[in-house]
Amino acid sequence: MSFLVTGGAGCIGSDLCEALIAQGHSVVAVDNLSSGKKEHVEGLLHNPRFRFIEGDLLDLWLVEQSMEGVDFVYHMAANPDVKFTPGDPTDKDLNQNMICTYHVLEAMRRRRVQKLAFASTSAVYGISPEMPIREDSFFPRPISLYGATKQACEAMISAFQNLFGMQCWIFRFANIVGPKVRSKGRTVIGDFIHRLRQDSSRLLILGNGQQAKSYLLSEECVNAMLFGVEHAREPINIFNLGCDDWLSVNEIARMVTEAMGLKNVRYEYTGGEGGWPGDVPRFRLDVSRINQLGWRAKRDSAQAVAIAIQTTLAAMTEKA
Amino acid sequence: MSFLVTGGAGCIGSDLCEALIAQGHSVVAVDNLSSGKKEHVEGLLHNPRFRFIEGDLLDLWLVEQSMEGVDFVYHMAANPDVKFTPGDPTDKDLNQNMICTYHVLEAMRRRRVQKLAFASTSAVYGISPEMPIREDSFFPRPISLYGATKQACEAMISAFQNLFGMQCWIFRFANIVGPKVRSKGRTVIGDFIHRLRQDSSRLLILGNGQQAKSYLLSEECVNAMLFGVEHAREPINIFNLGCDDWLSVNEIARMVTEAMGLKNVRYEYTGGEGGWPGDVPRFRLDVSRINQLGWRAKRDSAQAVAIAIQTTLAAMTEKA
Repeated sequence: MSFLVTGGAGCIGSDLCEALIAQGHSVVAVDNLSSGKKEHVEGLLHNPRFRFIEGDLLDLWLVEQSMEGVDFVYHMAANPDVKFTPGDPTDKDLNQNMICTYHVLEAMRRRRVQKLAFASTSAVYGISPEMPIREDSFFPRPISLYGATKQACEAMISAFQNLFGMQCWIFRFANIVGPKVRSKGRTVIGDFIHRLRQDSSRLLILGNGQQAKSYLLSEECVNAMLFGVEHAREPINIFNLGCDDWLSVNEIARMVTEAMGLKNVRYEYTGGEGGWPGDVPRFRLDVSRINQLGWRAKRDSAQAVAIAIQTTLAAMTEKA
Repeated sequence: MSFLVTGGAGCIGSDLCEALIAQGHSVVAVDNLSSGKKEHVEGLLHNPRFRFIEGDLLDLWLVEQSMEGVDFVYHMAANPDVKFTPGDPTDKDLNQNMICTYHVLEAMRRRRVQKLAFASTSAVYGISPEMPIREDSFFPRPISLYGATKQACEAMISAFQNLFGMQCWIFRFANIVGPKVRSKGRTVIGDFIHRLRQDSSRLLILGNGQQAKSYLLSEECVNAMLFGVEHAREPINIFNLGCDDWLSVNEIARMVTEAMGLKNVRYEYTGGEGGWPGDVPRFRLDVSRINQLGWRAKRDSAQAVAIAIQTTLAAMTEKA
C-alpha cells in the first residue's frame, strides 16, 4: 500500500515512516521542517519506496499533489508546542492544527482517498470529571488552544467521515517520550536534563510538581497505531493510547537527578497546579478499549520515562 | 450596559437586539447581510442606543473596532445554511463559524471584553447514544460540517475562557422557528408552505418523514438566553435550549396542509432516514438544566410550530 505521512520528519512521524517502510509499504512524507528534522528520515532517503516532500500543509495545492496514488493518510503534523506562553500569537494552533487538518480532509475528498489515521491528544479532554478518562463518556472542555484545536480537528474528521464515506482512526496520545522527543526542551525530561546541565545545584520545576500524567514511548505509540488500524474496523475508531498509570513531575525530577548521578539538588517550584496556562495538571487515561482489541503498552509510565531519560542522555553524550 | 450582537440583523439576532434595547441597554449590531436583513432592525435604526455596522466578521480589524466600549458580546452570526448540498464548498462553515468565532474571541482578548454568549446548536451532538440528550454526558460526534464547526467554536471558547479569564454562556439551540425564520425556505415550515403554494396537490418531503426534532420559537429562544446569562454564574455555562418533546416531519406536513385549508394532498418522499447529508434524523434535548435554573419554554414543539405556521402564512399574505 501507499501511505502519506504528514509530519513525517517529526519524532513520532519518522518512527512511523520507518515502520511502514519495514512492512514493505511505500511512503510519502510531508514536513515543513518547522519542528521536524530531515536527519530523522535520513536513513530512508535512499529507499526507492520512500519520498520526502518539504512543504507546508497550509498550501492546499501541495497537500493535494502529495496525495497522488496514496491509499491511506497518517496525519501526524501539528503545532508541537503544546504550551501557550502569554505573548504568543493565538492563531498558531488554529492554523497548524485546524486549517491544516481541513486541508488534509479536503484533499482526501478531492482525490478520493478514503482512509485516515489522526494523531490526537489527551489534551482534548481538558479538566476531566472522571479518572481514568474513557474515550466517550463526557463532553470535553479543553483548556488549551492546542487541545481545543485538536478537538476541532476531530469534529471535522467526524463530519467528513460521515459526509464522504471515509474510514478514520483517531488516536488520543498520552505524553509521548523517546530519544527524538527532546528538541527545544519541549518535554519535561529534556527540560530537566537541560536545566541540570546548566546548573546541577538546583532544578526549577513548573507548577507544584504534583502534576501527574501518563507517558508512552514513541515506538510503542507507533506500534499501537499500526495495531489499531489493522484491527479496528468501524467507520470511526477512537482510542486513548497510553498505559493506565501516571507519574508525577516530582518523581520524574527524582529519576532524572538520579540518572545524572547528581545529589543534593534543590528543587524550586514556580507554584500553581498546572505547569503553564492551559496545562492539564493531572490525567490518567482509560486504555481498556485498545487493550481489549489486543494491544497493551509493554512499559508503564515510569519505565517509559526511565528509558527516555537513558536514551536522551546517551544521545546528548554522543553529540557532545 | 453596552452589548455587541453579531448577526444582529438575523432572525434571532434582531429579536435579541430589540429585547436588549427594550431593557435599556446600548447595542451595536454587526451583520454582513449575507442572510440577515436590514428590515429586521429597521425599527431600531433611529434609536440613539442602537448602532448598526454592515461588515464581515472575517475582517478581524472590523471586529476589533466594533468592540469599542462593549461590555458583553452575543455572538449569533453563523452560516445559517445547516444543509450541505454536494457541490457546495466544504469550507463555508469553517470560515463563517470557526474563523469568525476565533476573530470574535481574539478581538475580545485584545479589547479586554470578558463576557460572551454564543449561539451553538444541537447539531454538535451528531447521532446521540442517549435520548433525551444531556449537555455533558458523552463525547459528541457531529455528522455535518455545520455541527462540527460549531463544536470547534465551543472548544475554542472553552480554551479562551480558561486562558484569558473570560466568562461564557453557550446555548445549544433546538430548531428555532418564527415569523422571520422563513427566508430562502431554510426551515421545514417555510419549505412546505412554499411548495404547497406552487402545487397544492402534492408535497415533496425530504427523507421518510419520520425525522423528529425539538422546536422552539425565536422569541422564547431570546428570552431563554437573557435568562441564562442573568442567572447562571459559572465561568462556562452550557445549556440546551428547547422544550423536551419532539415533533415529526410528517406531523408538520399535516399541520401546514391543514392550516392552508388543503385536502387530499399527496405526500411524496425522497426516502432515507435523514432529510439531507449530515441531517440528524431524530433528536430530543434534555432541558432540565435550564428548567432547574428557572426557565421553561411556554410552548411545546407542536405549539411553537403551529404559531410559526400561522405567523409565516400571515406575513406571506401581507406581502402578497
